[in-house]
Amino acid sequence: VNPEHRRVRIDLAYDGTDFAGWQFQPGQRTVQGLLEDELTRLAGGDPVRIRGAGRTDSGAHARGQVADTEFTKRLDDERLAHALRSVLPRDVRPLRVRSVEPGFHSCLSALRKTYVYQLDLSVCGDPFRSRYALHHPKPLELDAIRRGLALLAGKRDWSGFTASSCTIEDRVRTLKTACLETPTASTARFRFECDGFLTHMVRNIVGTLLKIGRGRMPVSRIREILETGDRGLAGPTAAAHGLCLLGIVYPGEVDEDAPPRA
Amino acid sequence: VNPEHRRVRIDLAYDGTDFAGWQFQPGQRTVQGLLEDELTRLAGGDPVRIRGAGRTDSGAHARGQVADTEFTKRLDDERLAHALRSVLPRDVRPLRVRSVEPGFHSCLSALRKTYVYQLDLSVCGDPFRSRYALHHPKPLELDAIRRGLALLAGKRDWSGFTASSCTIEDRVRTLKTACLETPTASTARFRFECDGFLTHMVRNIVGTLLKIGRGRMPVSRIREILETGDRGLAGPTAAAHGLCLLGIVYPGEVDEDAPPRA
Repeated sequence: VNPEHRRVRIDLAYDGTDFAGWQFQPGQRTVQGLLEDELTRLAGGDPVRIRGAGRTDSGAHARGQVADTEFTKRLDDERLAHALRSVLPRDVRPLRVRSVEPGFHSCLSALRKTYVYQLDLSVCGDPFRSRYALHHPKPLELDAIRRGLALLAGKRDWSGFTASSCTIEDRVRTLKTACLETPTASTARFRFECDGFLTHMVRNIVGTLLKIGRGRMPVSRIREILETGDRGLAGPTAAAHGLCLLGIVYPGEVDEDAPPRA
Repeated sequence: VNPEHRRVRIDLAYDGTDFAGWQFQPGQRTVQGLLEDELTRLAGGDPVRIRGAGRTDSGAHARGQVADTEFTKRLDDERLAHALRSVLPRDVRPLRVRSVEPGFHSCLSALRKTYVYQLDLSVCGDPFRSRYALHHPKPLELDAIRRGLALLAGKRDWSGFTASSCTIEDRVRTLKTACLETPTASTARFRFECDGFLTHMVRNIVGTLLKIGRGRMPVSRIREILETGDRGLAGPTAAAHGLCLLGIVYPGEVDEDAPPRA
């Protein structure tokens, strides 16, 4: 460990529309890549690498992504925050910068994460939400969707809702919250809170629930997918732009039994 | 008047970010130009020209713009609405299509219009509002702004708040509503309701009020600008992307003394 460095946690919000996702990919505009470039410049050229709490998909958004890195003490938290606000573009904003204990790991230390998936149910489509919500003008049986959600909550093996590209073998996770909110007549929002999400898990769940809501799949299919782990029984992967990483909870931050933040 | 035609009113919402404003300009992407192109195509090639209630600026938005045109009876309202929903892009949406009396004129028939101007007061800037709100992280004295707003409401000559490019000579208009709403700690929204707006009127008023809110101009300057009609005394024109045409009221639509719609 370099004595001139300390561990820094950076909380971020980004509009994912113009990003090829979180994870660095050569030649692509990614959130991680952009942030590493700017941090490297601010550190005076020493390559800076960061860790993220979760790899959001290309086109998906975040209101509360968390990253961490080892960074020179020469720029304190306040000056680093100010510098990042100045150099980062309008579609990725550093919400908070703070020094943390050396053992902090944005992914491994996370207790749970919350994702939301937004639907625009209006007939015409709201131009102000088209980047952030899946336009779904066809009627949905919300009751059927809610019955499906009720079958999902709990500790389960999520193989049937995981992308085949996922290399993680242990797919048991505890989904603490799985609900549907309808704040206005033309808006519906899924909310999922889990101790860990697998590749495309939320989008595959939403794609399946939308098929159920359209009457194209029985509610009982949820149980079948969970029992067999057969991805082929589930619905399609819902579009990425409706998805948003809302926030992440770390130890000591909030009462662990408190309801999720809005 | 072509007996095979009727007058049609089209209510529209658009995200103005990628438009060079409402008004047709050759070689530019404008809302009017795009709509006329699509209507011409739907009419089978006969050039269709439309009138708009107001010429929104390049980068400004609309939730309730109104246009009207003479259009063939071959496509009834419902089929025309459906066709427009299909062919128009995600950033301009037809909210409603309906046949109206032949004398309807979206601009001349309008009783009053409501514009809002949004501010994002957060320190970091919200990436999800950066297209729709002016980011203003510096402190504002909202009380001073409200005192300035109180001096604006009423029937006045608006020359001092009108762009020099404006060719309209009679600049007397009645501003029925001029208020500031603060729905959250990081959001402020100006609301202006008037029987007619002049070029850059809202943006010049907002630019002046922001200078007052920063303590760079006395509240009494408002009175001076109104009395002298001197544009040079007012503040700069606030950026277009915070501005949104919220809605327009026509005779018989609502109680004329009712509060403006949200």
